[in-house]
Amino acid sequence: MSHWLRSRPASTDAMLAVFDDDATLRHALAFEAALARAEAAEELIEAEAAEAIDMLCARIVIDPAELANEAALAGTLAIPLVARLRKDLPESAAKALHKGATSQDLADCVLVLQIRAGHARLAADLGRVATALATLARRHAATPAIGRTLLQDALPIGFGLRIAQWQAGIVAATERLGREVESGAVLQFGGAAGTRAGLSDKADAVSARLAKALGLPDAPPWHARREGTAGIASALAILIGALGKMARDVSLLAQNGIGEAREPAVPGRGGSSAMAHKRNPTACQITLSAATRAPGLAAGILAGLTAAEQERGLGGWQAEGPALAELFLIAAGAAEAMAGVAEGLEVDEGAIARNLEAAGLGDDIGESEALAAALLGNGTR
Amino acid sequence: MSHWLRSRPASTDAMLAVFDDDATLRHALAFEAALARAEAAEELIEAEAAEAIDMLCARIVIDPAELANEAALAGTLAIPLVARLRKDLPESAAKALHKGATSQDLADCVLVLQIRAGHARLAADLGRVATALATLARRHAATPAIGRTLLQDALPIGFGLRIAQWQAGIVAATERLGREVESGAVLQFGGAAGTRAGLSDKADAVSARLAKALGLPDAPPWHARREGTAGIASALAILIGALGKMARDVSLLAQNGIGEAREPAVPGRGGSSAMAHKRNPTACQITLSAATRAPGLAAGILAGLTAAEQERGLGGWQAEGPALAELFLIAAGAAEAMAGVAEGLEVDEGAIARNLEAAGLGDDIGESEALAAALLGNGTR
Amino acid sequence: MSHWLRSRPASTDAMLAVFDDDATLRHALAFEAALARAEAAEELIEAEAAEAIDMLCARIVIDPAELANEAALAGTLAIPLVARLRKDLPESAAKALHKGATSQDLADCVLVLQIRAGHARLAADLGRVATALATLARRHAATPAIGRTLLQDALPIGFGLRIAQWQAGIVAATERLGREVESGAVLQFGGAAGTRAGLSDKADAVSARLAKALGLPDAPPWHARREGTAGIASALAILIGALGKMARDVSLLAQNGIGEAREPAVPGRGGSSAMAHKRNPTACQITLSAATRAPGLAAGILAGLTAAEQERGLGGWQAEGPALAELFLIAAGAAEAMAGVAEGLEVDEGAIARNLEAAGLGDDIGESEALAAALLGNGTR
Amino acid sequence: MSHWLRSRPASTDAMLAVFDDDATLRHALAFEAALARAEAAEELIEAEAAEAIDMLCARIVIDPAELANEAALAGTLAIPLVARLRKDLPESAAKALHKGATSQDLADCVLVLQIRAGHARLAADLGRVATALATLARRHAATPAIGRTLLQDALPIGFGLRIAQWQAGIVAATERLGREVESGAVLQFGGAAGTRAGLSDKADAVSARLAKALGLPDAPPWHARREGTAGIASALAILIGALGKMARDVSLLAQNGIGEAREPAVPGRGGSSAMAHKRNPTACQITLSAATRAPGLAAGILAGLTAAEQERGLGGWQAEGPALAELFLIAAGAAEAMAGVAEGLEVDEGAIARNLEAAGLGDDIGESEALAAALLGNGTR
Repeated sequence: MSHWLRSRPASTDAMLAVFDDDATLRHALAFEAALARAEAAEELIEAEAAEAIDMLCARIVIDPAELANEAALAGTLAIPLVARLRKDLPESAAKALHKGATSQDLADCVLVLQIRAGHARLAADLGRVATALATLARRHAATPAIGRTLLQDALPIGFGLRIAQWQAGIVAATERLGREVESGAVLQFGGAAGTRAGLSDKADAVSARLAKALGLPDAPPWHARREGTAGIASALAILIGALGKMARDVSLLAQNGIGEAREPAVPGRGGSSAMAHKRNPTACQITLSAATRAPGLAAGILAGLTAAEQERGLGGWQAEGPALAELFLIAAGAAEAMAGVAEGLEVDEGAIARNLEAAGLGDDIGESEALAAALLGNGTR
Repeated sequence: MSHWLRSRPASTDAMLAVFDDDATLRHALAFEAALARAEAAEELIEAEAAEAIDMLCARIVIDPAELANEAALAGTLAIPLVARLRKDLPESAAKALHKGATSQDLADCVLVLQIRAGHARLAADLGRVATALATLARRHAATPAIGRTLLQDALPIGFGLRIAQWQAGIVAATERLGREVESGAVLQFGGAAGTRAGLSDKADAVSARLAKALGLPDAPPWHARREGTAGIASALAILIGALGKMARDVSLLAQNGIGEAREPAVPGRGGSSAMAHKRNPTACQITLSAATRAPGLAAGILAGLTAAEQERGLGGWQAEGPALAELFLIAAGAAEAMAGVAEGLEVDEGAIARNLEAAGLGDDIGESEALAAALLGNGTR
Repeated sequence: MSHWLRSRPASTDAMLAVFDDDATLRHALAFEAALARAEAAEELIEAEAAEAIDMLCARIVIDPAELANEAALAGTLAIPLVARLRKDLPESAAKALHKGATSQDLADCVLVLQIRAGHARLAADLGRVATALATLARRHAATPAIGRTLLQDALPIGFGLRIAQWQAGIVAATERLGREVESGAVLQFGGAAGTRAGLSDKADAVSARLAKALGLPDAPPWHARREGTAGIASALAILIGALGKMARDVSLLAQNGIGEAREPAVPGRGGSSAMAHKRNPTACQITLSAATRAPGLAAGILAGLTAAEQERGLGGWQAEGPALAELFLIAAGAAEAMAGVAEGLEVDEGAIARNLEAAGLGDDIGESEALAAALLGNGTR
Repeated sequence: MSHWLRSRPASTDAMLAVFDDDATLRHALAFEAALARAEAAEELIEAEAAEAIDMLCARIVIDPAELANEAALAGTLAIPLVARLRKDLPESAAKALHKGATSQDLADCVLVLQIRAGHARLAADLGRVATALATLARRHAATPAIGRTLLQDALPIGFGLRIAQWQAGIVAATERLGREVESGAVLQFGGAAGTRAGLSDKADAVSARLAKALGLPDAPPWHARREGTAGIASALAILIGALGKMARDVSLLAQNGIGEAREPAVPGRGGSSAMAHKRNPTACQITLSAATRAPGLAAGILAGLTAAEQERGLGGWQAEGPALAELFLIAAGAAEAMAGVAEGLEVDEGAIARNLEAAGLGDDIGESEALAAALLGNGTR
């Protein structure tokens, strides 16, 4: 689909790669290989079988498009993938492959690995935003500016206090996302009905080994208990909203007639196909567009919580993947866009002073400096 | 992004093509060519310039990925596209290109052309659903079955009445979608600030010619008035919900212990990677997953209505494209899935009779036949 | 609940009355009385029984709070209501009461009657908005003003063109709502399982009489086919979004440093508890708050489409009532607020001229006047 | 509004009281009194003035309906409330009242106090759910039952494992809500523009005293940084979804033809106005209706994050109050409903055995007992 044509910042390429066919396939193969090794270590399958599986998963070349067609028909990726692998394995290894696992174990582990990779990608840009805003907030903490409430001049503030509020909101949202990813993006391994049947009394040990090999926290199966992914989705939407608040403010500050700050000039960015004189707040546009979309995307995932019937739901969890990927994608775009704005924001102290003067409400900025320092100090309220 | 791997029915390929890079580019070039021809016909630009533009648009080969990178930077597709075209045009034609138009004119016309193409794609499968359900409803109109309310046995119904209700809901939703597409997917042509400036007194005539060439109803500019696209999005969500209602019912009927109907068997479909005995309602899964996602996607577009500031909003309309494309994509998957189910539904009359008998509530199906006929007769309430 | 304390315009009192206990009870009693009369006219029950029911429904005094407690326990209003009525009726009339009907018939008819009453309430204020905006748009159609795209100065427009766009969006949304109410708010009469059993061959005639008595279009049962109410909910959300677009623009125009227009001064309105100098855009606040909430409320109703299992769903349609009432309530607040703004908007032509001058982009407003006239002419695109 | 008539469980009365006019007014008066005392302690106002304010707030009788009308006009509760109080105060106390505070300080503190009260109300019923489900899960941990995936018989499970999964999901969601309330429902005290101006250098001390008096954690102002309330709203939606998952499963288990468990019989509950034989899953209905509504309500609050312009937003935070109250209200209904179901669930071991037998898939429940124990052990994954 080509709509990203219209508003794709560079960082979304990297995030697209986190969720693309290759990554999906790579994680899926890693799952099967790690499972086989874990089961061999627990003597549930032959060491030779595990080795054959491991080697095949490392070297097999699969056309994702072709596999996708089969997966679409089957309703799950695991079935055609396992079938393909079995074709290239000796009989005993073929039988040992995927032992004790089910389609959703594979699908959820892939999703969780992608969530962790997506989160790691986001972290860098979010760190840039936090650092740059802190610097900016400190620089302008004592600069008197007119504060505005309900889009009307209110009373003076330290210009940096507004920026410190952006920073605190984004940092708090970043921390929430970190917590949710840590507790929610964990191993899924339950087998066909979530009982870990068929693994003698070694299911716990296999689970622990599998988790370790995949770099995931071990956990009981959560196939039909989706509040972890819902928490991650909500945290992403809140993060995007916090970035959106900054973008909204920057775009308002950049208006003609206000002019207190604007996005940095980037060659080739923010022009108009009809008006050469314009400099559009393109980074804000990317972020506000993301903020318009995020609540609904999160709502779609929240709706899946209840559609998780019995041991595996029909429709609910299948709806999570695309929406989570989209949330990560637009979060990446917004984070990168706001990192650039935070690092290069053009503050016009003259305009700030003129607007304050025009308001005629003095220049008492109260405790702005102390509050900015307090907000930046711990990053949360 | 690869998440469609997990639940992509075949028809989504065709819908993906409606919204892919090639289609986007093709529509964009068609817009520029048609605009030039319209302006030449009104003697606003030279006939030669229009011819040069027209020919270039027909033959130019552009790498969508490269263009996308430039568009991402510029914040709009029109800027780099127009720049590329100008490089290959004689000076007078280069100057004539895109005359009186703005980025959003191009973007919205592309979107509207994709909406109409997407709607045409959907129509075929929706027609299949309606026809097959009508046949099925008539066949079973007089078959006594236990009706169920609040998931409990209630009183007998004609089995076909339930099916006629599915049909009526889907047909009504299809009609609403048709109306919304017809009134909302119209020409956008306003120029930089929506005033059609710079076209002497011939703007109306250019608009009429452009609309005709693109196969769109002519209309005043609607750049910052998005209730047309919001209406289309809502109608898509309602349609998906109506298909979802059918899928929910079929999946309930197919439960072990009920067994009154089930999805047709399709080789390779609905198996389980862990349980060879299972036949999963994969078509229902696709549709229910779509129905879980649709309300939130529509909400994201509804939210953009207000974020349409002044003559062109910042963030709101930019959020529409991806969400509309996604709605069409999941609608296509659901429509195709339910067309297959409607055409091949395996009805088990023995099970229907057994369940009715077990309920012990007689077999008075009231006016079921007449009501089914009435529902099928006009397709709407 | 008291949160309306914070942002309740006067008109919401009237809308609250449309959906309050008294109205609910009144409609419910009207349903039972009309049903009895219809069935007596078709000789399904005794004329005397119908008369007794009719008279009782006209004079009975019920404490809504007490009834509510019983209804809460029963899971439906009909059960305790019918039980109460039966206590005060002679035996034959008691038996005749509610014949052939079920709880949802009563609940849906009450909802539909409230929707129609709510729609009628809205219509008055929406008419005021449309008329006042048309006048305003015509008055300022030729006033050159700077147009703004992406919150930046773009090119000149006729100030009235922006207003005509508000008007066209609100009028189109009003028309959509009218269509959806007309087609979706229709009689629900199906009996326990939607088959109209137990009424000999006279169910059609009863339905026709009942519809006529209640002032509703007759229709086949739609108990588990909710796309009509979903269409109404979506249309309300779109209408609120169109009003929100106007509110967003007015609040931007009213900013210090822009000052081209602002809400009319109303004694007691828009002050600040801390800042005596402020005049807050309170009407815009009401409308923008409504616009923030509407998409999610509509999404909740869209989600219920699929949760309409078999002959009566579990959870889906029960979720509609509160959300629809809330949508009507916030729509009423927004419509009244914007009617006041449209009728009293304070336009500052001096500021408009100064801002245009400052932009330095000339004063060519293109076809603004003609476009405004076209938009106002038919009210839709 | 009367729609709660249709599905109101008893506990919502208590939750309605948390958010009603009286509670709002009580918290508002407590805020003004505590502020005055804090400022007197810091010698910012006279001790006598504080005493007069304190006494007046304790004894004044205000008609909430009348105040509501004035608040509606003013756009905020604080303005008419402060005006009323001032009328009954000596001049110096009148001047001291509300010193350094603004409308939103009062509004947000009231909201936060209501959130904490609402959370405390919820906790009791959530505790009942967790305890009863744990007992039930342990009792049936080793009972072989057929597991179901995608609504089809899959492989055997321990019946208690499914219940342990319900418990774990609800407990995890309860814990998330507790965390979000603890970090998000904190003191708001910033004054007109969030700078705590006008309090000499004692703003910190006043804030600390005010927080302590109101029983809230102290915090820097967060007036335009709403991720705390968004986190609470999301956590409520996730909790409702987790309760909804349990309700969905119970309603599926209670189907005729399955019959493995059903809601406890409650006199007067779950009947049908047309079918005396039915026992409807009314508690599940309440919970599933809540789960249908919750995602959209949360989305409305997420949308407000970005509409928090500068030092106080226009529309965004004003949208939070009603939606948060509604979320608490439906959460209360769902929690009470599921507490009753958990405590009285009627499990039919005969039906469980029959269905398992009919599936013909043996009785190997794998590690069900150990997994149930693990899930119950720590309540989280």
